Amino acid sequence: MRQVVADPDCTFCGIVSGQVRASLVYEDALVMSFMDIHPAAPGDLLVIPKMHAEGLEDIDAPLMAHLFQTVHLLTHALRHSGLPCEGVNLFLADGEAAGQTVSHLHVHVFPRTTDDRFRLEVRWLERSRDALDDDAERIRSGLEKRTSAI
Amino acid sequence: MRQVVADPDCTFCGIVSGQVRASLVYEDALVMSFMDIHPAAPGDLLVIPKMHAEGLEDIDAPLMAHLFQTVHLLTHALRHSGLPCEGVNLFLADGEAAGQTVSHLHVHVFPRTTDDRFRLEVRWLERSRDALDDDAERIRSGLEKRTSAI
Repeated sequence: MRQVVADPDCTFCGIVSGQVRASLVYEDALVMSFMDIHPAAPGDLLVIPKMHAEGLEDIDAPLMAHLFQTVHLLTHALRHSGLPCEGVNLFLADGEAAGQTVSHLHVHVFPRTTDDRFRLEVRWLERSRDALDDDAERIRSGLEKRTSAI
Repeated sequence: MRQVVADPDCTFCGIVSGQVRASLVYEDALVMSFMDIHPAAPGDLLVIPKMHAEGLEDIDAPLMAHLFQTVHLLTHALRHSGLPCEGVNLFLADGEAAGQTVSHLHVHVFPRTTDDRFRLEVRWLERSRDALDDDAERIRSGLEKRTSAI
């Protein structure tokens, strides 16, 4: 795990330090939330760890828990804000192949309405039970490698 | 908060009770993970609370924390599984307007590769700083309502 408190070239670290302006929603010792500067809809929030962490591999379990407890709290807040919000999507991109464009881990909290243009484009596969069982077995083996490495 | 242990009409509750077959990856007292029967790519996982909860409003903060600590663990496992995985997306749909199709809360863990067809279709807005500040203010007021209601 990389432990970098702040990256001088990172915009989100700049927001954490106060050098880059943002519309803040929430802050505590470990995490911060502010409005996405290019929202999908009004109310589109980002929630980040304050320390510079690029991906999920770079934060520990307690910080993951706190990050998503904050997401949970802010989802409630968004639903009680009066902004149009009939549903919510949580979205996180970990890695360039996953569409991550800012290299500081961030969770999107997207307010949704029935008539918005937000869409997840996925070609869902048909996969046999045997193939699914094999996939599960491979991930369980990944879990064992991970657990034995701790 | 609705407290329903199991809904007899819910497929995911059927998986939890063992009445519906699934390719299991992980299980503990509170959460369970199995392969999505219609994956976006091999390795596409779902992580759910075992109790029947429809949305984020229906689980408490400790369960939210545990759910996403499990997501964190399984993301590591997926990356160490040998299945194609150059990046990961986490995705949660809370409410029909957000595209939720199974009414039992679930987190998608999507393995990604640079050449896959997965795409988030969003029309990103330009929004003025004043508008962003207003949005932030409204969500902070939602947060206060929420906090004072606890």
